[in-house]
Amino acid sequence: MELRTIYEAIQEDLDKIEDKLRSLSEVGFPQLSKLLDYSLKSSGKRIRPALTLLSGKFYNYNLDYLLPMATAAEVMHTATLVHDDAIDNSLIRRGKPTVNKLWGDEKAVLLGDYLFAEAGALTASTQNLRVIKLFADTLKTISSGELSQAFYAFNLEQGRPQYIQRLAHKTASLFSMATESGAVLSQAPEESIQILIEYGYNLGIAFQIVDDILDFIGTEEEMGKPIGSDLAQGTLTLPAILLLERYPEGNPMKGVVQTKDKQANIKQAIELVRNSPSIIQECYQVASDYCAQACHNLKLLPDNPSRQSLVELAEYIIHRKR
Amino acid sequence: MELRTIYEAIQEDLDKIEDKLRSLSEVGFPQLSKLLDYSLKSSGKRIRPALTLLSGKFYNYNLDYLLPMATAAEVMHTATLVHDDAIDNSLIRRGKPTVNKLWGDEKAVLLGDYLFAEAGALTASTQNLRVIKLFADTLKTISSGELSQAFYAFNLEQGRPQYIQRLAHKTASLFSMATESGAVLSQAPEESIQILIEYGYNLGIAFQIVDDILDFIGTEEEMGKPIGSDLAQGTLTLPAILLLERYPEGNPMKGVVQTKDKQANIKQAIELVRNSPSIIQECYQVASDYCAQACHNLKLLPDNPSRQSLVELAEYIIHRKR
Repeated sequence: MELRTIYEAIQEDLDKIEDKLRSLSEVGFPQLSKLLDYSLKSSGKRIRPALTLLSGKFYNYNLDYLLPMATAAEVMHTATLVHDDAIDNSLIRRGKPTVNKLWGDEKAVLLGDYLFAEAGALTASTQNLRVIKLFADTLKTISSGELSQAFYAFNLEQGRPQYIQRLAHKTASLFSMATESGAVLSQAPEESIQILIEYGYNLGIAFQIVDDILDFIGTEEEMGKPIGSDLAQGTLTLPAILLLERYPEGNPMKGVVQTKDKQANIKQAIELVRNSPSIIQECYQVASDYCAQACHNLKLLPDNPSRQSLVELAEYIIHRKR
Repeated sequence: MELRTIYEAIQEDLDKIEDKLRSLSEVGFPQLSKLLDYSLKSSGKRIRPALTLLSGKFYNYNLDYLLPMATAAEVMHTATLVHDDAIDNSLIRRGKPTVNKLWGDEKAVLLGDYLFAEAGALTASTQNLRVIKLFADTLKTISSGELSQAFYAFNLEQGRPQYIQRLAHKTASLFSMATESGAVLSQAPEESIQILIEYGYNLGIAFQIVDDILDFIGTEEEMGKPIGSDLAQGTLTLPAILLLERYPEGNPMKGVVQTKDKQANIKQAIELVRNSPSIIQECYQVASDYCAQACHNLKLLPDNPSRQSLVELAEYIIHRKR
């Protein structure tokens, strides 16, 4: 199923978010304006703002609050990407040169700071204290997840629990912020809020697992960035962890953590995963289990087209190629 | 006058802020804990939190709100320093190796992000929407000021108006956030809030001008960082601008913007300023004028020891050696 079909119930409002994102680059400082325009206008999937809007559809769907919050979720996501790319020295993202590639690390770091602040300002404009606190706490969680990833880079002593915890911090926290804020701002009752938090959290884990699979088996063209970039950064993801579990001896992963001939070992690890249908299948199974968990309690929410969209989104996330 | 004497009316509460800052590093992630402890425990002057507390002393001095906000101001300041040092590749600050020197740029960027989020969470805990909005807007202003500085680095086409505007963005905005938030959280009437905003803004400009002077005429030992670091980054500050105004021909500043022999030209520019009492005097005069402007309307506030402290702080800022 296409994203466009899944988004049908909210497409009009997603378009308003695009307008809002565009308007954020209208600042009286041309160089900043250009940076904002470049980073916010993208071919991204806009999943996080869609989650806020869809989660807001069950009770009092008030765009005065939901639009700035959904925009905040996307701006916050963009900020983390801009910083990640600068940190990882990534040169290409979504098929375009990164901000750090075009303008240098210095401007990328400062642009990311500005975007975090803009996301905070948008969140503040909802005037909802629960959502404002959630925003700040989420940014703490994401940064500490990224820090954990940095501290454990090139360390083979990481198993599935650490991996899932890192995903919970760096990806799922923002997904569940998106759903929780949508629910809170539409005055959903607490049980419904909790169902949507659970959905967002589990969907986020599944989304990142699939991202990590695609970093092994995807194509550069579809992904819009080089394959194997996680391994190049020393980040052990699920396919790499399963590879280590299955081939404890003579595993190219051990070569990846050494400095010599790192590139050849990364290539070999990717080939091994690509040629191990059982590893790929198991990774997808883990992701599917999280998607099932995400959708488990959705039936307790009011029945409406958005509920169906959330179920379809969980399916889309598993089958996506980019 | 010593800072300790100026802070007398609030010393007990400043100690509580130190406790609060210490408690922020108690997180269940030892590596992050160490980074937080290192960056927040410092020999800093704690001027920003002092401003919040002093500004809160005129009406309803409620520590439940003022303590987290004052702490937020210091944490936000720390976050900007951590990012600035990473961006500038600075190796020493306040006499200690910088976070980027000890842990690398990657962790410095992520630590800064975490600190911004922590400052946001502390601000959110005041539950005051005006102050929360002010926080986000201030971070936008600071980042855009830093971006402006980055875009105009090594560009001699900058005069005093651009210089003052940059200071207003990158320094004065945080000073006035500190005073405004103290006033707002103590339920000051709007006229008093405006007087304290004006104080914070002008004090911030004066503070940064003196910082910029000391980067020419201070000693590395007192400053706790290398002298001439602004010029090394291509940042034109007031002494450099006056030097260009006075010696349009054969000025070493022109050598600074060229790549060859940059270091020798920086050294020469520093020597020229150090040997130009009239330039130094004029810079101090500009700073003093901002201090006078800062204090101009303080007399309209209720007369109490804090009002006197604010006046003394303005004097201290001019005469400080670090």
